[in-house]
Amino acid sequence: MEAARLSPSLAAAAFLARRPPRASPISLRRRLPLLRLFASASGSGGDGRVVALSSAELRKRRGLSSPSAATDSVFGGDEKLRSLRRLFSRPDIAIDAYIVPSQDAHQSEFIAECFMRRAYLTGFTGSAGTAVVTKDKAALWTDGRYFLQAEKELSHEWTLMRSGNHGVPTTSEWLNDVLPSGGRVGIDPFLFSFDAAEELKNAILTKNHELVLIQSMNLIDEIWEDSKPEPPKRPTRVHDIKYAGIDVTSKLSFVRSQLAENGCDAMVISMLDEVAWFLNLRGSDVPHSPVFYSYLIVDVSTATLFVDSNKVPEDVLEHLEKAGVKLKPYEAILLAAKGVKLWLDSSSVNAAIVSAFKSSCDAYKESKGKAGRRVEEKDKTPDGTASLNGELNVMFQASPVTLAKAIKNEAEVEGMKNSHLRDAAALAEFWCWLEEEVCKNVSLTESFLYQYEMLCYGANGAIIHYRPIPESCSSVGSDNLFLLDSGAQYIDGTTDITRTVHFGEPSARQKECFTRVLQGHIALDQAVFPERTPGFVLDVLARSSLWKIGLDYRHGTGHGVGAALNVHEGPQSISYRYGNLTALQKGMIVSNEPGYYEDNSFGIRIENLLLIKELSLANSFGGISYLGFEKLTFVPIQSKLIDPSLLSSSEIDWVNKYHEQVWEKVSPLVSGDARDWLWKNTRPILYKTQ
Amino acid sequence: MEAARLSPSLAAAAFLARRPPRASPISLRRRLPLLRLFASASGSGGDGRVVALSSAELRKRRGLSSPSAATDSVFGGDEKLRSLRRLFSRPDIAIDAYIVPSQDAHQSEFIAECFMRRAYLTGFTGSAGTAVVTKDKAALWTDGRYFLQAEKELSHEWTLMRSGNHGVPTTSEWLNDVLPSGGRVGIDPFLFSFDAAEELKNAILTKNHELVLIQSMNLIDEIWEDSKPEPPKRPTRVHDIKYAGIDVTSKLSFVRSQLAENGCDAMVISMLDEVAWFLNLRGSDVPHSPVFYSYLIVDVSTATLFVDSNKVPEDVLEHLEKAGVKLKPYEAILLAAKGVKLWLDSSSVNAAIVSAFKSSCDAYKESKGKAGRRVEEKDKTPDGTASLNGELNVMFQASPVTLAKAIKNEAEVEGMKNSHLRDAAALAEFWCWLEEEVCKNVSLTESFLYQYEMLCYGANGAIIHYRPIPESCSSVGSDNLFLLDSGAQYIDGTTDITRTVHFGEPSARQKECFTRVLQGHIALDQAVFPERTPGFVLDVLARSSLWKIGLDYRHGTGHGVGAALNVHEGPQSISYRYGNLTALQKGMIVSNEPGYYEDNSFGIRIENLLLIKELSLANSFGGISYLGFEKLTFVPIQSKLIDPSLLSSSEIDWVNKYHEQVWEKVSPLVSGDARDWLWKNTRPILYKTQ
Repeated sequence: MEAARLSPSLAAAAFLARRPPRASPISLRRRLPLLRLFASASGSGGDGRVVALSSAELRKRRGLSSPSAATDSVFGGDEKLRSLRRLFSRPDIAIDAYIVPSQDAHQSEFIAECFMRRAYLTGFTGSAGTAVVTKDKAALWTDGRYFLQAEKELSHEWTLMRSGNHGVPTTSEWLNDVLPSGGRVGIDPFLFSFDAAEELKNAILTKNHELVLIQSMNLIDEIWEDSKPEPPKRPTRVHDIKYAGIDVTSKLSFVRSQLAENGCDAMVISMLDEVAWFLNLRGSDVPHSPVFYSYLIVDVSTATLFVDSNKVPEDVLEHLEKAGVKLKPYEAILLAAKGVKLWLDSSSVNAAIVSAFKSSCDAYKESKGKAGRRVEEKDKTPDGTASLNGELNVMFQASPVTLAKAIKNEAEVEGMKNSHLRDAAALAEFWCWLEEEVCKNVSLTESFLYQYEMLCYGANGAIIHYRPIPESCSSVGSDNLFLLDSGAQYIDGTTDITRTVHFGEPSARQKECFTRVLQGHIALDQAVFPERTPGFVLDVLARSSLWKIGLDYRHGTGHGVGAALNVHEGPQSISYRYGNLTALQKGMIVSNEPGYYEDNSFGIRIENLLLIKELSLANSFGGISYLGFEKLTFVPIQSKLIDPSLLSSSEIDWVNKYHEQVWEKVSPLVSGDARDWLWKNTRPILYKTQ
Repeated sequence: MEAARLSPSLAAAAFLARRPPRASPISLRRRLPLLRLFASASGSGGDGRVVALSSAELRKRRGLSSPSAATDSVFGGDEKLRSLRRLFSRPDIAIDAYIVPSQDAHQSEFIAECFMRRAYLTGFTGSAGTAVVTKDKAALWTDGRYFLQAEKELSHEWTLMRSGNHGVPTTSEWLNDVLPSGGRVGIDPFLFSFDAAEELKNAILTKNHELVLIQSMNLIDEIWEDSKPEPPKRPTRVHDIKYAGIDVTSKLSFVRSQLAENGCDAMVISMLDEVAWFLNLRGSDVPHSPVFYSYLIVDVSTATLFVDSNKVPEDVLEHLEKAGVKLKPYEAILLAAKGVKLWLDSSSVNAAIVSAFKSSCDAYKESKGKAGRRVEEKDKTPDGTASLNGELNVMFQASPVTLAKAIKNEAEVEGMKNSHLRDAAALAEFWCWLEEEVCKNVSLTESFLYQYEMLCYGANGAIIHYRPIPESCSSVGSDNLFLLDSGAQYIDGTTDITRTVHFGEPSARQKECFTRVLQGHIALDQAVFPERTPGFVLDVLARSSLWKIGLDYRHGTGHGVGAALNVHEGPQSISYRYGNLTALQKGMIVSNEPGYYEDNSFGIRIENLLLIKELSLANSFGGISYLGFEKLTFVPIQSKLIDPSLLSSSEIDWVNKYHEQVWEKVSPLVSGDARDWLWKNTRPILYKTQ
């Protein structure tokens, strides 16, 4: 699930701290993630120690207004909006609207607190959304995952725009509608990819609005002032070659061969996970993803990492020097590219970099009297891919690192498999502990558990990306479904898993819905497909069992996952959206996570990670490869929630075979109660004659 | 299946003529199509009487070279190519290449013999293909359905271009490759839609080639000369309102409201099935489709049908006059549209009409000194849909008739259901007769049977669109699979069905493949999906059972079908190609026809027609409609070919329930041996424990 999440390893830590140590603490510790427990942006002190803060405290530390502040604004109006609008009329700014996206300068999904400007401005804390403020209106766009959450968090001065719903305009359509013709629409060009900025510019041109790139300052930072958190400063570290599989020198050779093939001199890599993967480094600048704020430029003979040098300890420096990678300050990226043919991935590189490169080309042209030509719209091909010809000094094309990173090498696959087994053991301990606590009627609020997990209980489970607030969260009990979406960063891999359980007696309705979701999960898990099949082709397999009774879910079915890297990575996906034509390829990893969410009642999701592998079948029609999935996740699916009368015999076989594998693979890693719990939860279900 | 086909009604006619009349001929005749047996282009005399000609005679009548002529050309060279190339250098022509598509001026799939220029030129008789001839090269493009057939039919002077295969260039890529820069590429603008001509023009512009519209003559007609068949002359007829459901006056009101909504004055309708549907008329100009060559222009107060008046009998004239529709000669279309805002579907209206309209606009502008503006490329929106603004006098947008025709009204649905039952009865008679003949070892060649059916036997079944030639065709026997794709035109409906049978003992391999195809057929048949789902989303359901053992098929899974109209109609489809975003909608009809074809061995396809209907389910998540299918086709699927051990119990239930329905619905319409045959072939299959 594309959600902020915390580590199940933290759950295990919580378990260690709170549960009477019946099993040997040492043997348990052995099973914890080897590297580090990552902490949420909210729950971690600066020293990496895990601390539990109240949600109110967390909101305060992030400068977010409390829920009651939202109520206050009914009377006093929103002070942040007033401050922002005051800036609109400053002569050096002079705009009629300002757009505040969720992203940082690298199009990251999870971002450092100091860049959470949209959340600061709006109070809406979901991971996806765009705020647009005019002189008299304020609107927030978010998608179906966040409708309920946004309704709860936004004050009355904000209009919620439910993206994807019929008749809801896009941001640019809305601007064209509400602004008088000829308006000036401001953005921070660091926060928009070049493609997004161009699209926006053209969309608002129809009403003669001008897109104003305000590069010198971010207006939200201006009003945030002193309460704005410090930029992250934690050190980077070397990602061992035994986990990375391919050394930096080889990766450099690969990119240089790509440069040569495309007649380019240099390439800018701006996605944080691409930089980390490329340099076999990891960092701690953002929650949930082991990346660090940086840019990388590779040219035919040199490579330069733009990063705060305070984050680079001695061993990392040596590692980089050995590969011939030089350091420059993070901010120096705008000065970097001059007079060379540059390869840019315009879908990720920000508009500020392209703008700076344009200027340098112009300056170069003036000084040399020839060579560079401005980057103009007509130099882009219709599909925005390749366009290097004549004197044009930029090629807009997808970064070759994206696909290289998505297709895991042997060491990465090995690490993903191993980390998933350790994760499964930690989760067995956690689930065993939680079940006992609930049975003992210990009060465990979602808010408390959220310090350790991404979860949803009962009606809150129907908010797809729910984040509990102490004042309104539920206690985990035995009278409703409990949905837990968790993931961990291990030194050798990244996990992402969702399970839904009931600690009491599920209703027939809940069992029916759960079983339909499970059928979708099984259908996708068992899919076989020819090479070159895009992920969206398979999406229907996960949905059709739900469709048969008129149910559906409003999110995609699968996303890519990095190897000890981002929990959500491209370019592949499995989604009902048909835009992504990337083929599913051998060595890629995808999640399989159909769900069902009944408003104000309960939420269900079953998520495993899958490795795409080539199959050896009796036939291969067309002389091509046929691909299938290998499961990485081995954690029981609660049998209590399954209605076997709805399953075919082959679906029942799937469940029983899966649980047999879970027991075989995970039982050697657990002992005591957790082992008993695992045994009980992997017993075969029986065929039920209809 | 997108194939030329003959009527099963013809099969029944054959049956009547040849089989000892054990059942009463009268009772049998009652079950025949009420209106007429449509005849293939090859098998029908000019008087509508069904005659059986030898294939050699058919080829001669069409001016096609015989297979041996193809061999001759190895020595003598191809005379047609020589004649065509001589025309290239005529001063009034002066071209370097000429493109010969399969279509007529209306983008029809089935065309009159006199327009089969591509088949005449190349010898390749498949329904889809494009020939391109330069001064020293000749190439034919066709798709996967026709590779084997084209290999057989093309002489050595032709290069077969296998469209869709890796590395095979498009026609324009090939022209850019083989022609020296600045070449002149000729086309007949009547045979290209405006969109296709524009795309071609732009594609060859990259090598500075010019697209030359040769409107005054078709070069193939020039070399065809006297052997060219006469244009069709058969009369049109009124399609009774009890089958059409909606009268012409209502349809005129609908289109006029569409004109008003879009600020247009007139609309050109050029697709033959749209004209026929719109006017509640039917004709006999092309094989397999009850349409007639014509154009229709509707404006705010008048409507004009451009048609050869010899085809319009008195009652049709009255019918048209009653609705206020005037007649003009077919050729007058180019003179028709002047000084009005015209609505054109640029995907179907031909480039000659647009070109004529441009000229008339220019002339109008000059005479009036204002008003009209030239149709220029920039006046088209990027997606080619709507673009009416300012003084521009044309709007390119999909014809509103396309969707109105695809969504059947109650009378049309009723007619389709009724005609399918009569068709099923005729097929029961046919299959019963054929099985007896084969058992008696009567020699029935494919070529003979092809006079009555579209079929494939054994290895020839692996040629997806096979057309038997007496010299090389198989005899239908009991040692291989027999595939029969048939369809009929009834007064109230159109049928399209494929069944595959074995008259002897099928191999385990054949049974496995057949059962996999059947599983795909069942999965699609049972699909439920939310409104607004495009057909391609469901395609994978029909394929995934084959994919599981590394098999696939190289054609789409479903096409639209007209009501007593074209057997293939848009806009919807169910295909692995992702381009068609048309949603499947209540009232549409689609075929469900997965297959599997083993080269040089056998072919399997199972095809039913399905009506899309709205379902009443226990839930309707998202507050939207959920849709599903209702079967129109009721003909047994041969149980002998099914391996029950591969089926789930619900799949076995599907087969048994279907056969129960077949018996209930069709048995009252047959008697004697055919009834016995139907009884035997609708017995339930047994669950097989694995």
